[in-house]
Amino acid sequence: MKFTGQHILSVNQFERDDLQNIFDIAAKMEPYAKRQVRTKVLDGAILGNLFFEPSTRTRVSFGCAFNLLGGEVRETTGMQSSALAKGESLYDTARVISSYSDVIAMRHPQAGSVAEFAEGSRVPVINGGDGANEHPTQALLDLFTIQKELSAFGQNIDGMHIAMVGDLKNGRTVHSLSKLLAMYNNVHVSLVSPDALAMPTSVIDTLENAGHKITISDKMENHIDADIVYQTRIQEERFASQDEANKYRGQFRLNSEIYTKYCKSNTVIMHPLPRDSRSDANELDNDLNQNPNLAIFRQADNGVLIRMALFALTLGVADKVDQYQVDVPWVSSK
Amino acid sequence: MKFTGQHILSVNQFERDDLQNIFDIAAKMEPYAKRQVRTKVLDGAILGNLFFEPSTRTRVSFGCAFNLLGGEVRETTGMQSSALAKGESLYDTARVISSYSDVIAMRHPQAGSVAEFAEGSRVPVINGGDGANEHPTQALLDLFTIQKELSAFGQNIDGMHIAMVGDLKNGRTVHSLSKLLAMYNNVHVSLVSPDALAMPTSVIDTLENAGHKITISDKMENHIDADIVYQTRIQEERFASQDEANKYRGQFRLNSEIYTKYCKSNTVIMHPLPRDSRSDANELDNDLNQNPNLAIFRQADNGVLIRMALFALTLGVADKVDQYQVDVPWVSSK
Amino acid sequence: MKFTGQHILSVNQFERDDLQNIFDIAAKMEPYAKRQVRTKVLDGAILGNLFFEPSTRTRVSFGCAFNLLGGEVRETTGMQSSALAKGESLYDTARVISSYSDVIAMRHPQAGSVAEFAEGSRVPVINGGDGANEHPTQALLDLFTIQKELSAFGQNIDGMHIAMVGDLKNGRTVHSLSKLLAMYNNVHVSLVSPDALAMPTSVIDTLENAGHKITISDKMENHIDADIVYQTRIQEERFASQDEANKYRGQFRLNSEIYTKYCKSNTVIMHPLPRDSRSDANELDNDLNQNPNLAIFRQADNGVLIRMALFALTLGVADKVDQYQVDVPWVSSK
Repeated sequence: MKFTGQHILSVNQFERDDLQNIFDIAAKMEPYAKRQVRTKVLDGAILGNLFFEPSTRTRVSFGCAFNLLGGEVRETTGMQSSALAKGESLYDTARVISSYSDVIAMRHPQAGSVAEFAEGSRVPVINGGDGANEHPTQALLDLFTIQKELSAFGQNIDGMHIAMVGDLKNGRTVHSLSKLLAMYNNVHVSLVSPDALAMPTSVIDTLENAGHKITISDKMENHIDADIVYQTRIQEERFASQDEANKYRGQFRLNSEIYTKYCKSNTVIMHPLPRDSRSDANELDNDLNQNPNLAIFRQADNGVLIRMALFALTLGVADKVDQYQVDVPWVSSK
Repeated sequence: MKFTGQHILSVNQFERDDLQNIFDIAAKMEPYAKRQVRTKVLDGAILGNLFFEPSTRTRVSFGCAFNLLGGEVRETTGMQSSALAKGESLYDTARVISSYSDVIAMRHPQAGSVAEFAEGSRVPVINGGDGANEHPTQALLDLFTIQKELSAFGQNIDGMHIAMVGDLKNGRTVHSLSKLLAMYNNVHVSLVSPDALAMPTSVIDTLENAGHKITISDKMENHIDADIVYQTRIQEERFASQDEANKYRGQFRLNSEIYTKYCKSNTVIMHPLPRDSRSDANELDNDLNQNPNLAIFRQADNGVLIRMALFALTLGVADKVDQYQVDVPWVSSK
Repeated sequence: MKFTGQHILSVNQFERDDLQNIFDIAAKMEPYAKRQVRTKVLDGAILGNLFFEPSTRTRVSFGCAFNLLGGEVRETTGMQSSALAKGESLYDTARVISSYSDVIAMRHPQAGSVAEFAEGSRVPVINGGDGANEHPTQALLDLFTIQKELSAFGQNIDGMHIAMVGDLKNGRTVHSLSKLLAMYNNVHVSLVSPDALAMPTSVIDTLENAGHKITISDKMENHIDADIVYQTRIQEERFASQDEANKYRGQFRLNSEIYTKYCKSNTVIMHPLPRDSRSDANELDNDLNQNPNLAIFRQADNGVLIRMALFALTLGVADKVDQYQVDVPWVSSK
């Protein structure tokens, strides 16, 4: 696809070539994010960072990514805008507020709202999550992380074995990631969850139609000898009651002992974060923090790179980033 | 008036020459807002964007205007400041917080509060709305829009016919606009509202004292063959009850059919936004969205230009903006 | 101490030399804060301004200080982050969010939380207040103000007489200031408060161990003929009931009459702000506003200088600030 001037609303709009294009540019962003050098390619550009639903880290990640390219950020958090309460349409809101920026990142609690907003927008809109619907930058950063981590061992996405573990019913990230995996070849996907939190059949169909091998289990033990273990949090807030949620609390814990016993020596551990660190819950024990294959914080770092890449692509400067390089005068801790 | 270092608190502080001065500079801001070129004239300057009452779009419009001149924005939204709750005077708040910026834009729910704050401020303060009192940048952008739209037809404000329609009692914008119109000549003002929502007599007096022709009616039909129709929203939140507000709901709707029947072929439609798009209310129907004379989104764009002009004037750089031009490396959608 | 890359968590980490180092650099920041000249030394650097407890002026002061050095600010206000509610550890939050910035300023309602966060952070963290525990930048700006004000009279901190007045039990600032004063010589400290709001004995011990002279009284009158009167607000929100707080309301008022009668001709008046200006409370009367020795707003100004100094030190650019000077194109009111 041509990215310049386009909205980024759904993982469905990408083909495999597009993914590789995004990942290649994201990889080139690393020296900027690590502060080895700066770029001013978007100096003076304005990001409208519209979070109608709070999400501190996704909001700050988008804002930081834009700053790292040299741009400015105008923000809104929460449904402060009484305009919608006064009966304004999303179209009108978009027409007005898109005139205040050069590109927009938007999160909204309602599925479909970001696409509706995009129709009225005069500038590219990047979906930062619209309810249970889509969160494409998360899916991209997950897949980008998998590719980077595997490449360190000379592997790639084609032919890998990934185990998805935990709440596969309510976890939006594993659904979107599965859609992207369907563009690759010969992936073995192990789905580990209690029956009540199983992966939706539509997602399983997508994976099967791609010719992938699917294994389903309600036990971790013999299924996490994978290249990637993608662990998830039980989404307690989606359950009918806390009692209902508590049934699953603390199942599928991964810690150093279990890792040593059942994982491969270089199994990469991923998680969309936040992980639940309360002692009766923690799906990823803190005793894994020193494990070099724990990739969960590298995932967050990769999110900044992916968002930088999408800004550079939609604003048509992906090939100009290096032309606007300047030195870093301060001492970076990164 | 001399603008450098001055507060912008009320439309009453302007004479006709001042308005033209502001409009001339606002017009010069257009290439910057449209991203044909950038300016760094306020690079490093800090706007204190103090919204003690939430108003997403006015806040973002001020912030964006400052960014477009190259400056930085520090913000506060809502009455977070517990300092006032702890008994601090507005004078003290202003003394302290004005030391954190080079110019301040401020909105506050209480009439008179912005002027009170300005007395303690060490930097220029621009009123972004103080309750039912004043919202001078809205009045300026409305009049600037009228002048721009009419000039496309070879007309100007002197001698025009404007119809103000809807809730003329509670609509702050039509009061302020009327004060500004009193500086011009031979304007015909049609006031269309239900009796209970009529324009206050003090405002009518101001218009009559300026020698303008006033027509008053509770029906739109024979009064909107004007150069400008300034439509307003029924301010439901100002009524004693929703039942009381519902009496007026959906009166004075303007849609394509009525426009074709009663307006001139080039009647310009304005509205301070948000418009109420709920089906039983909408004062400006969506079927007008393709009408080239629907100026409501151009109004919002003009708000950015007016705010840029006021920042440039109060900071004494109105004649330096072009000296600090730089190119735009990214592909703009504007 | 070596500042580059270090956290600033507590006044306890400084020695007297460190304080003088910070103050010397803060003094050099004054032309930048007064807009006589700009610096771009931190152009492109990102401050993570994380205020998990609202505090408008401290937040804006940190942000402004960073902007004055040329940097960008990403912010969060309030406990929006549902991540902690979902059981995330402060360590995880820190690991993730520290990757979005080059330095962090953080306020949090819970004592010790900032230090805990700092352990997970990959960039320097500056404590902007952690509950009843520490607020080191306030203590530094207080002491810096004392030094600057006294130097105008040819005096210094060694040998001075300071009276601390009001709620010495709940006022975090007087506790931290006392810790810093313990590094100086021959200070006479008058502690004026009702018995129930007396300075904690641990703080008095610190002052006595430093060899300072302590005077304790529940009357201002014969104890404010000092070089510095550090007045405080009765922290009503810390009392069991409003009735309990009201007992102390309006005690220890300082106004022009009392100043003339009991203070020296050049006694400097300080206050951490906000001061309570309600007529039955005001501990510092507005009739002192024209008194040239009222230093309360200069204190706030000094806060920006101190924060600029700490950013410059922790990012290792304290000696480079002048190398990145640029002119100020706009007309400053400062």
